[in-house]
Amino acid sequence: MTPSRSVTSVAVFGASGYAGALCARLLHRHPFFMLTAVTSRSDVGRRVDELYPHHRVPMIMEELDLDRHADVDAAIVAYPHGAAAELVAELRRREVKVVDLSADFRLRDAAVYEEWYRPHPEPALLGQAVYGLPEHYRDDIRDAALVANPGCYPTAAILGLAPLARAGLVSDVIIDAKSGVSGAGRSATDTTHFVSVDENMNAYSVPRHRHTPEIEQELAVLGADRPITFTPHLIPLDQGELVTCYVTGADPGEDLTDIYREAYADEPFVEVVRAPPGVRAVRETNLCRISVHRDERTGRVIVFSVIDNLWKGTASQAVQNLNLMFGRPEGEGIS
Amino acid sequence: MTPSRSVTSVAVFGASGYAGALCARLLHRHPFFMLTAVTSRSDVGRRVDELYPHHRVPMIMEELDLDRHADVDAAIVAYPHGAAAELVAELRRREVKVVDLSADFRLRDAAVYEEWYRPHPEPALLGQAVYGLPEHYRDDIRDAALVANPGCYPTAAILGLAPLARAGLVSDVIIDAKSGVSGAGRSATDTTHFVSVDENMNAYSVPRHRHTPEIEQELAVLGADRPITFTPHLIPLDQGELVTCYVTGADPGEDLTDIYREAYADEPFVEVVRAPPGVRAVRETNLCRISVHRDERTGRVIVFSVIDNLWKGTASQAVQNLNLMFGRPEGEGIS
Amino acid sequence: MTPSRSVTSVAVFGASGYAGALCARLLHRHPFFMLTAVTSRSDVGRRVDELYPHHRVPMIMEELDLDRHADVDAAIVAYPHGAAAELVAELRRREVKVVDLSADFRLRDAAVYEEWYRPHPEPALLGQAVYGLPEHYRDDIRDAALVANPGCYPTAAILGLAPLARAGLVSDVIIDAKSGVSGAGRSATDTTHFVSVDENMNAYSVPRHRHTPEIEQELAVLGADRPITFTPHLIPLDQGELVTCYVTGADPGEDLTDIYREAYADEPFVEVVRAPPGVRAVRETNLCRISVHRDERTGRVIVFSVIDNLWKGTASQAVQNLNLMFGRPEGEGIS
Amino acid sequence: MTPSRSVTSVAVFGASGYAGALCARLLHRHPFFMLTAVTSRSDVGRRVDELYPHHRVPMIMEELDLDRHADVDAAIVAYPHGAAAELVAELRRREVKVVDLSADFRLRDAAVYEEWYRPHPEPALLGQAVYGLPEHYRDDIRDAALVANPGCYPTAAILGLAPLARAGLVSDVIIDAKSGVSGAGRSATDTTHFVSVDENMNAYSVPRHRHTPEIEQELAVLGADRPITFTPHLIPLDQGELVTCYVTGADPGEDLTDIYREAYADEPFVEVVRAPPGVRAVRETNLCRISVHRDERTGRVIVFSVIDNLWKGTASQAVQNLNLMFGRPEGEGIS
Repeated sequence: MTPSRSVTSVAVFGASGYAGALCARLLHRHPFFMLTAVTSRSDVGRRVDELYPHHRVPMIMEELDLDRHADVDAAIVAYPHGAAAELVAELRRREVKVVDLSADFRLRDAAVYEEWYRPHPEPALLGQAVYGLPEHYRDDIRDAALVANPGCYPTAAILGLAPLARAGLVSDVIIDAKSGVSGAGRSATDTTHFVSVDENMNAYSVPRHRHTPEIEQELAVLGADRPITFTPHLIPLDQGELVTCYVTGADPGEDLTDIYREAYADEPFVEVVRAPPGVRAVRETNLCRISVHRDERTGRVIVFSVIDNLWKGTASQAVQNLNLMFGRPEGEGIS
Repeated sequence: MTPSRSVTSVAVFGASGYAGALCARLLHRHPFFMLTAVTSRSDVGRRVDELYPHHRVPMIMEELDLDRHADVDAAIVAYPHGAAAELVAELRRREVKVVDLSADFRLRDAAVYEEWYRPHPEPALLGQAVYGLPEHYRDDIRDAALVANPGCYPTAAILGLAPLARAGLVSDVIIDAKSGVSGAGRSATDTTHFVSVDENMNAYSVPRHRHTPEIEQELAVLGADRPITFTPHLIPLDQGELVTCYVTGADPGEDLTDIYREAYADEPFVEVVRAPPGVRAVRETNLCRISVHRDERTGRVIVFSVIDNLWKGTASQAVQNLNLMFGRPEGEGIS
Repeated sequence: MTPSRSVTSVAVFGASGYAGALCARLLHRHPFFMLTAVTSRSDVGRRVDELYPHHRVPMIMEELDLDRHADVDAAIVAYPHGAAAELVAELRRREVKVVDLSADFRLRDAAVYEEWYRPHPEPALLGQAVYGLPEHYRDDIRDAALVANPGCYPTAAILGLAPLARAGLVSDVIIDAKSGVSGAGRSATDTTHFVSVDENMNAYSVPRHRHTPEIEQELAVLGADRPITFTPHLIPLDQGELVTCYVTGADPGEDLTDIYREAYADEPFVEVVRAPPGVRAVRETNLCRISVHRDERTGRVIVFSVIDNLWKGTASQAVQNLNLMFGRPEGEGIS
Repeated sequence: MTPSRSVTSVAVFGASGYAGALCARLLHRHPFFMLTAVTSRSDVGRRVDELYPHHRVPMIMEELDLDRHADVDAAIVAYPHGAAAELVAELRRREVKVVDLSADFRLRDAAVYEEWYRPHPEPALLGQAVYGLPEHYRDDIRDAALVANPGCYPTAAILGLAPLARAGLVSDVIIDAKSGVSGAGRSATDTTHFVSVDENMNAYSVPRHRHTPEIEQELAVLGADRPITFTPHLIPLDQGELVTCYVTGADPGEDLTDIYREAYADEPFVEVVRAPPGVRAVRETNLCRISVHRDERTGRVIVFSVIDNLWKGTASQAVQNLNLMFGRPEGEGIS
């Protein structure tokens, strides 16, 4: 590896949550980036490895102080939706390149954002943001100063449906999604209590989960523009996400797995397999593993797509995006 | 309770599997039936409570000896598909009333059975069998000498879809099902190893799980006769089953929950709730809990239906059927 | 069953926690007692079955109003340590018979209580309280107006050690305890978050867990009066508790299992087995299952004792005590 | 890194089990060693990543053919006890350096081996073998041609007790151990079935687990030569092992944590912490994390020691040993 002349510094803002902490871990060990600061709103003064010993990041989380912390080349913002936009705007004013983990810059249309969230706090910035799915926007991400990291469900769903959508084979989509509990975040609530989750499973946010418009936006780009049905379920496991997609559409006349294999032949982080994949196969990786099946009796196509919601679904994809933004090998530090 | 003059004796054939053992437990404590024999093919000579201490059935599992064991008023046959039919036929020749847990008598059409299983070993008996879903066939079950206990997925799915189907609102159905591991049976395999299941989830039997024609058969009875898509998933929990049904159909113009509440107003074992139910709420009960939701954006209806796969999905429903066949209160011994 | 002339009414104070809610469930279905009120401090106005659907108790939890709620024959108080004493005192002044689930009346010596908890708020009442372990104090409980329900760990540990202690074979005791998460209560904390517990295990409250003096007190009654070492561990399961007891002592010269079987021959809720018991065997029962082993190489005796921490460890034992206090069959409503 | 002139080749014999497969994964990515062959007795012809997709080892497991497979510089033998010795002897005859994962060469005394296992098949080799705990035998391992990789429980227990033993503070030891299910191996049995393990826990191999003499042997080396009591328990998690050690001994008169920190100051893979550690903190690492506590009331010392049973407990420790045997940095490929 050829080291760059000067160090490229990165900060993680909001490092006490699951996603931010994992970003800190990946960057702390990254061969190119230097993690220079981690901040937190809830755990100021504690070390990351006090909360997450397995991440082995012995850095103290500080209170946000932009004059000190914004003096970096890049930042990952791991704030909740709504709270992120303002910090991102400030970082951009200071010319820091940003990967934002929140939903604030994922939807290109402020009106759609307002319909599903609230009035957009920084609509002027929307035009700058690139949707951070490298498999679809690799070149744009390379040139971007602001990348909106995709949601976990959209990552799995869009990668799972894209080859069909591009082939014009998607006319109606149902996505039945299942996620481990880490997707619900670190907050201790009745919903995340071990006794509530263990030996249980149930759907939630029915019928209007906020990842719906994000999936629709990206499918529309690929030519599939009808509203979709998206239903997430909470499953008693830690990390891992499986989306089962049901698609009605024309018969392509050729083997679907071949179509998928060709579509992803050059993608280092997408694997197409024949049997329905399990989430364990991609645990703690940046991989998305997909299988596609045709139900001859109904003419429907079923796609299974699995990711680790905290890795490809959030943190490792954020680092993948950072790598692209700084001209690094795409898989550096996350393979 | 008025005890009957003479004891009504019952045997469980195949008591070493999860379903048979639970039947034995429920009948062992039943206030009306007397469990007089339990048999096993794999564990002859062992006590049920040696394998299943929590069931507290201190009876020894014997090798099948029809001359001794068929001298009962009723039997539950907990044999695998294919193996059950022959034993059921022999029991019927000896005029024993039978609840069969296998799929052998669930499909009314021997040709459909052959398509999904194998040539039917006892097609002459098919005409005698009543499909053992009390909510749909209560009166027939009362008069039946042979009841085909429904599959676990069909139980949840049919109860979840019936009110819509009866109202003519079902034109297209996708069922995404999630089941705990007990549904895979007691056999120790790579698939049921703790390390394979823990922190994992995946679909299986795609796209032709054998419960598909059973669901289609019963939906057709209700007027919904198009092929369905049915996809089961294995989830890291013990007992519990959730089916998520996606239905395309006309808008009924009234509140769906009200329609469901009315449909099940007199059913003691079906509960209609507003929020998506969790499987924990019905664990170790004969209950089916259902919620129904309309997705206004797509016009689709989403139904969630949860049961305990070993209880309402198998063993307690078998006892519910036995109760009906012998004129007992339907919930005796299972409430 | 001979019904009593008039109804015997019971209230559960603090029904929104795991223990109180399970008491409500057991009493709601109890053939003798009539559950007339449930109260809560945190969930006033909600139904028990809204929080715990599987308990099927359709009663609304009310704010405590002693003038209304203390007009009962008996009460179960499911308040935290410290808060319970005052309510118990008030109920006793109104001549309500009480089973208290807290630690407030378990330790007979107020000085010991103060050492491990705080100054005792109602020391005058200590003399009235009977330690509610039916296997040891059955007759006293029958005559008691105030029963201090044992802690979950003490229940398993004392039952596991009593036969040795009575035989004078206990000179030194180490108790290594493992508990499911329900033992930590319903509060949503970092410690009870699914992601913290899943795939994890660790000791806690080292080296001074508050159940220590309770176990010592009862072992001393049996003649074993040396301090013990007690170390609890949190295990990723819901309900269930296993205590592993290591005892140094003289060789009895006879088979230990025989000694235990004789000791518990007349006890309906204690089972002595040969192989180390698993917690699943006693799940949702009032049973304690014990095995005892001699390690010939070291001369040490190892005892395994399992209970369901919410049942025999708390709620069903409370009902067992209520049954005794009112002259009912000991296992009524909990078998 | 300076590459060696010629490649150093390694084979893994028995790569279809959990331990062998993880060795294959670690060596497949190792910057120094080249994994040239993997064999299996049960899964010849299958790829490692077919059985273990998350290990990402796309190599086919072959049937053992010593003429081809023994032409390597080093081997890891992942065979069961008894079966390993013969293969190890053959490999040594061919001058292959070996790390043996079985117990066959851990016990220095063939008579002790025979007492706990069976007559030793290759006693002549015992003198060659070095016990592969780098923290105790680093220099010997560097010069060794045959390393007996420690058992998982002994690794955690010996590291947990060594500082006390060396200080002469150990006169009596009880080890209460808890392990995840991967420790039971890949065989699908009633014991490893998800439904048997889930929501359960129990002790096993009481009172004579075969790791006992291994722990005693190594404690004796450190000066603590009394028999120990060792009791393992099966816990519902995948990977992770916690040993709780109870030690009776003299008071050192200084802070125990300080003693431990000093003892392990130079050890890269042992961490001494203040609070009882959880197994999650060391998951998928080569780390052992230890805390030590004095119970003033009883004078006893309690030590908690956690490892990942498949990593530091087996596979990554094997690679750590290989690194030492070939003069590589000790943590290469496992940090």
